Amino acid sequence: MPAGSTGVTGPAGFRAAGVAAGIKSSGGKDLALVVNDGPEQVAAGVFTTNKVKAAPVLWSRQVLEQHRLRAVVLNAGCANACTGPEGFQDTHATAEHVADVLGVGAIEVAVCSTGLIGERLPMDAVRGGVDAAAAALDVGERAGFDAATAVLTTDTVAKQALVRDPDGYAVGGFAKGAGMLAPNLATMLAVLTTDAVLGAEELDAALRAATRVTFDRLDVDGGTSTNDTVLVLASGASGVRPDPAAFTERLTEVCSDLVRQLQGDAEGVTKTIDVVVRGAADEDDAVAVGRTIAEDNLVKTALFGSDPNWGRIAMALGRVDARIDVDALEIAANGVTLFAGGTRAADRSAVDLSGREIEIVVDLHVGPHEATILTTDLSHGYVEENSAYSS
Amino acid sequence: MPAGSTGVTGPAGFRAAGVAAGIKSSGGKDLALVVNDGPEQVAAGVFTTNKVKAAPVLWSRQVLEQHRLRAVVLNAGCANACTGPEGFQDTHATAEHVADVLGVGAIEVAVCSTGLIGERLPMDAVRGGVDAAAAALDVGERAGFDAATAVLTTDTVAKQALVRDPDGYAVGGFAKGAGMLAPNLATMLAVLTTDAVLGAEELDAALRAATRVTFDRLDVDGGTSTNDTVLVLASGASGVRPDPAAFTERLTEVCSDLVRQLQGDAEGVTKTIDVVVRGAADEDDAVAVGRTIAEDNLVKTALFGSDPNWGRIAMALGRVDARIDVDALEIAANGVTLFAGGTRAADRSAVDLSGREIEIVVDLHVGPHEATILTTDLSHGYVEENSAYSS
Repeated sequence: MPAGSTGVTGPAGFRAAGVAAGIKSSGGKDLALVVNDGPEQVAAGVFTTNKVKAAPVLWSRQVLEQHRLRAVVLNAGCANACTGPEGFQDTHATAEHVADVLGVGAIEVAVCSTGLIGERLPMDAVRGGVDAAAAALDVGERAGFDAATAVLTTDTVAKQALVRDPDGYAVGGFAKGAGMLAPNLATMLAVLTTDAVLGAEELDAALRAATRVTFDRLDVDGGTSTNDTVLVLASGASGVRPDPAAFTERLTEVCSDLVRQLQGDAEGVTKTIDVVVRGAADEDDAVAVGRTIAEDNLVKTALFGSDPNWGRIAMALGRVDARIDVDALEIAANGVTLFAGGTRAADRSAVDLSGREIEIVVDLHVGPHEATILTTDLSHGYVEENSAYSS
Repeated sequence: MPAGSTGVTGPAGFRAAGVAAGIKSSGGKDLALVVNDGPEQVAAGVFTTNKVKAAPVLWSRQVLEQHRLRAVVLNAGCANACTGPEGFQDTHATAEHVADVLGVGAIEVAVCSTGLIGERLPMDAVRGGVDAAAAALDVGERAGFDAATAVLTTDTVAKQALVRDPDGYAVGGFAKGAGMLAPNLATMLAVLTTDAVLGAEELDAALRAATRVTFDRLDVDGGTSTNDTVLVLASGASGVRPDPAAFTERLTEVCSDLVRQLQGDAEGVTKTIDVVVRGAADEDDAVAVGRTIAEDNLVKTALFGSDPNWGRIAMALGRVDARIDVDALEIAANGVTLFAGGTRAADRSAVDLSGREIEIVVDLHVGPHEATILTTDLSHGYVEENSAYSS
């Protein structure tokens, strides 16, 4: 779905805004507000597994325990991580200020931050930004796009998605960052909205099911951010109570769409790489093998060079703690089987990796399970972007 | 120890040679032979933990079961990995040919290979190289240097070390590659020699103790090669039977010297980085924390940019499965404490990382254990070297 399409404001019952609050030194948009006008305010969230959790993660996780949100405030330009009790107070004060302006309770306001770790939030700028964003709140495409834009850091384009179910409800959302849930480059944040009527447990279960096979399977560099957060807000404004399985499918579609956009805009990306692992003894093995290949710098640099160096793939998967039989293993790239039966199956010149999209298929042939991990190459652009300035 | 110093031929009882056999397309030296003339031929080896093991690893591991070696033959330019039963036959034939030429048994000959995975060994070149190397076998500095040179791949200098114990014995060796034992870039191979008199169990225990705190703690990119091998050969020619603890110390010194040389010559290195982890609940935790920081691309690119971005270090260690208390944690770089008590302790401008050597000290403050992992930065040179050609 192209940037500019309706995201969080696609489903009925939501307003959004994105403003330049002066947190980013660039002067660009850096504060977003998403408000759920109801009639219902059911919500769920998943958060980073990193032991070093940013203040907004600690706050929002606590708030989400009651599965109810009126609003989410997000800022770019400062992660508010590793900032101690003072940083937590800043997050709390941000939520309080949003609550005051909107006339709701602070316990109904989630906070997300992304940017440099170890710096305090400039609270005057945040308060002014909240005031400006609250005044700018609107339904419609422009408002959703502004919010999606205000959370960007090293991203080059806004990422939005929307799916309308024939039963009469919609699921929308935006995301920023470039990595797995519990990522990595500059934090992954996503806000999803729906006007379906859902109970808290249904919504929570749907979010966990959807993120497990989407955000959790994007792995750009194995990092895990202190701030990663995916929130979903349900307004019930459509009056439609969906079948839970169908809703999970729609939510998964939106997450998958956003994840593809994150993959395509990852730092320094010149190749989008799908690592498909088949024939695993169980799904955990498939994920572990895919993730290890996706994180291997020798594989990632070879693919940057369009080099079908399958020996590096064999090397990478051989160090995974998974059930592997080297003689049964098959490795293919862009449709050409390169390794099978314990030895080379084709000359590497038989495969063309010069395009932007690469598919690696590893068939372990030891069981029926599979998983796909999405990743990118390791390019000069990645090194440049991550060495030339602090993020 | 500068290249050119005596390595494997430093201890008495050893001859070596390195020749150009025509395996490398560059035409450089690519086949080395190290012979133990005794009077004793005690040996021990440690090998890659990768599930995908090259043919020479399968062969040498089997040979080492009797803890006795007359000779080691090593080649660069072809890893002979993922080559199936035919590849194993090539290794076996190589050992047989060495055995014939030297008048020993094939079961007394270890084989090591390094280079591209998935290609078959050019056996005519190997046989010719073995003949030439056997004819060139010599004691003395030049022979050891030639052998150390013939195993290089992307290395830019030969790595040799020698320690003489006042009790009258010596420990020498050479190494190639750039990673941890069970590494990584282009394979790590090392051959160590000593003229001390040692039993098989003593030698084996000393090798495991020495590699555990040296080769095992060099981690350039987390990779684990299919071919990694460290062998030690004891000739007994000095007639000196050392105290086992003292010998382990000497062997560790030689390994440590070689590992420092590998670190300094790693692919694309512009910074040598020591990650010192203190105050861990146990040694495994210290190693896991150090290794995760050392492998984190966001940390490695920041350090390439001389940027004391300690937030990335905090992020990296927060994803380790180890006992960590964020409020107790301290992070320092080149002697300046940057994070303590859950928040920033100094401005990042207080630390200078512009030099080639960087020391990161992480004190977990939860126990008495520590470990140091040696690594390098992630530079444009690394990406270039690993994307521009197959290795």
